[in-house]
Amino acid sequence: MTDRRTVPAKFRAVDVIRNKRDGQELSREEIDALVHAYTVGEVPDYQVSAWLMAVVLRGMTRGETAALTDSMLHSGEVLDFSSMPQKKVDKHSTGGVGDKTSLVLAPLVAAAGISVPMISGRGLGHTGGTLDKLEAIPGFNVNLPVAEFRRALETCGCAMIGQTPEIAPADRKLYALRDVTGTVESPYLICASIMSKKLAEGIDGLVLDVKTGSGAFMKKEKDAALLAELMVETGERMGKQVVALITDMDQPLGKMIGNALEVVEVIEILRGHGPEDLRELCLHLAGWMLQLGGVSKSVAEGTQLSAQLISSGRALEKFRQMIELQGGDAKVINDNSRLPQAKRTTQVVSPTDGFISCMQCEQIGTACVILGGGRERKEDSVDPAVGIVLHKKVGDRVSIHEPLATIHYNSPERAQEAASLISKSIQIGDAAPAKRPLIHRVIQKSGDQL
Amino acid sequence: MTDRRTVPAKFRAVDVIRNKRDGQELSREEIDALVHAYTVGEVPDYQVSAWLMAVVLRGMTRGETAALTDSMLHSGEVLDFSSMPQKKVDKHSTGGVGDKTSLVLAPLVAAAGISVPMISGRGLGHTGGTLDKLEAIPGFNVNLPVAEFRRALETCGCAMIGQTPEIAPADRKLYALRDVTGTVESPYLICASIMSKKLAEGIDGLVLDVKTGSGAFMKKEKDAALLAELMVETGERMGKQVVALITDMDQPLGKMIGNALEVVEVIEILRGHGPEDLRELCLHLAGWMLQLGGVSKSVAEGTQLSAQLISSGRALEKFRQMIELQGGDAKVINDNSRLPQAKRTTQVVSPTDGFISCMQCEQIGTACVILGGGRERKEDSVDPAVGIVLHKKVGDRVSIHEPLATIHYNSPERAQEAASLISKSIQIGDAAPAKRPLIHRVIQKSGDQL
Repeated sequence: MTDRRTVPAKFRAVDVIRNKRDGQELSREEIDALVHAYTVGEVPDYQVSAWLMAVVLRGMTRGETAALTDSMLHSGEVLDFSSMPQKKVDKHSTGGVGDKTSLVLAPLVAAAGISVPMISGRGLGHTGGTLDKLEAIPGFNVNLPVAEFRRALETCGCAMIGQTPEIAPADRKLYALRDVTGTVESPYLICASIMSKKLAEGIDGLVLDVKTGSGAFMKKEKDAALLAELMVETGERMGKQVVALITDMDQPLGKMIGNALEVVEVIEILRGHGPEDLRELCLHLAGWMLQLGGVSKSVAEGTQLSAQLISSGRALEKFRQMIELQGGDAKVINDNSRLPQAKRTTQVVSPTDGFISCMQCEQIGTACVILGGGRERKEDSVDPAVGIVLHKKVGDRVSIHEPLATIHYNSPERAQEAASLISKSIQIGDAAPAKRPLIHRVIQKSGDQL
Repeated sequence: MTDRRTVPAKFRAVDVIRNKRDGQELSREEIDALVHAYTVGEVPDYQVSAWLMAVVLRGMTRGETAALTDSMLHSGEVLDFSSMPQKKVDKHSTGGVGDKTSLVLAPLVAAAGISVPMISGRGLGHTGGTLDKLEAIPGFNVNLPVAEFRRALETCGCAMIGQTPEIAPADRKLYALRDVTGTVESPYLICASIMSKKLAEGIDGLVLDVKTGSGAFMKKEKDAALLAELMVETGERMGKQVVALITDMDQPLGKMIGNALEVVEVIEILRGHGPEDLRELCLHLAGWMLQLGGVSKSVAEGTQLSAQLISSGRALEKFRQMIELQGGDAKVINDNSRLPQAKRTTQVVSPTDGFISCMQCEQIGTACVILGGGRERKEDSVDPAVGIVLHKKVGDRVSIHEPLATIHYNSPERAQEAASLISKSIQIGDAAPAKRPLIHRVIQKSGDQL
């Protein structure tokens, strides 16, 4: 599908670079020609990286951002599930520590009769990745071809796979280049990257979970809000229902961090148990997905229905069905010991009495990477068994020598390094800090963040 | 010589890119490592082009500019003429239309006992290039190896060659990349490019002719002054005597444009004739070169001595000697018909009575390129014979049907296109405009432009 657009005969990449460099608004034709020519290899990396840096430093208008998203979306195949009667709704998170909501939401929302065609990514840096978590389930295959993805969706209502070569090839090429040229950190480029992949799923609605706080890529709420607003407006311009929730990532979400451990916590949530913050966020995101998908009239109604789908066991049943359809060992649901287990555990204990006043969330994510549970470079493989279980969260009272976290490890050196980092990351004060809200705000149409 | 510096083990190009992107001042070590790693091929084009764009948009401090110049200078060989007793002084122009001063200055200043080791460039875009002009002289060889360059200098006191592979290889690589990535227009990068090559000539002093006006790269005097000040300060930081003159390029310099035609005008000047503006600028630049070279106590004294060296015929004699030493046909001095001749000529005439109120100087340069006298791309070859002779300059009175310019051409289609462009470029009004000064200002030490 990469040749569906042609490069205009008079197109000169250097002109597009210069226009952006000089702060001009690029036309849809200029953006489309550049993206297409780059995807098919007619424009070299060195021209596109100069253009990317000009975009980082000059920014983009909303029109340019939507045009870039559209060009990247149409650089490849756009899935068409219009033959399925259900509404198709997905969720995307900008990434955090302990964020396993996708694994809860796909079966939960599917149990409500909405189709969830979820294409996810792997962990990078201090954040985890949905595909790595799924692969902690023995046998689970995230590499379904499009035809099997469709079949799984039709059978079960949800399916979770990795990016296929057919989806947004421009994004894959651009992302690899941004990674090595200091051009990742641009809300316009991040928006186009996320939205081009998500809109290629052929969905009707999308709920965006934009993280902010010490464990998020966007540490400042202002930056998270700009990205959220860009994505909502881009979706709007492309005729999709999109809502963005700015949610808290100032401490890990839930208590478990690490691929197999997070699957355990997902199962707990789907059984109606699990940590309160994770349960609350899952129900709220599900509420929005049900409202966008037309199953519930309001978010509150959707949240309530989601809670019922959990307590009735239907969401967990859907999870079991999805695991089986994707080749995984569904017996893990009743027997955690079938998931990969780390050889040893050790504890990080409190040096004093007091209250947890704050957690350096990114460092806790990095501690999991150090254990082998994440990857510093794309080529790295991950150890599904290792991770961290937090026994305390921000605001909790602790006594001296009381365990703060248990480290599941396979390498003693790595465990020592991770323990030291976790110790330093958890601060203990004399009083409980003011509680941060879990959901900071909701951006539902362009201009909401202003 | 490219391996005289090593890339530090911990050096990561992406960190240097990000630091510049975020507006930080780079250290000498960071700049040096990047330039060295790029020159030896350890850092790819796509990282350097992103860095170049960050430099264009974020700028550089004076310290960074000097460090970049120094790294590029030391990417290759620095010539050492310290065994020659004379002072070595050169001149560099930022490029204009009809600017043939280098061909006058090298023999003129050499005739005063100063050594002029001039390494020049070719024309690009609307501006002419010294090497193209020299090559209009049959047999003239601009590709002397360094040993022959030295021998010519010792014998004659001046020699004019093209860039050798040994001189500033980093600049050659960077320039080629800047050309295709929209990163040419940065005073910091232009400064480092010019100064790294000029300081590699092993000179004691340098006179910079920074052009401003409609035919210059820096159309605004403010931009020309910034570049001039950067180059003067960079020279100062590297222990060289450097002065910059901001001179007028709002109309072509002299009356002849085109390679062989410009050689004719150079000979006229060296005979004590020729257009007043060209003669004045040559004498003034020579005055500065003689003052920097210690031959004259003041610029005025140097200018006066230069006028004498022309009227005595010694400068012309030096030009003859240089042509012979570089394999050229010195008989062209007494017989213009030995220079390449265009097949035909045609005239552009005035459509009305009045005064020349302004010339779009860049378009007149472009008309010469259209005739074949310049190059749009580096690979193009030039036709030495074609060009334009202006009969009128700004402020001159003209009558209806009076010739404004004669076009020397080999292709009738090109002549027509050039004639139409020249017609449009020359504006005729009711009164003579206020005269622009030829020399706008002199910048002799850092801070002069402020």
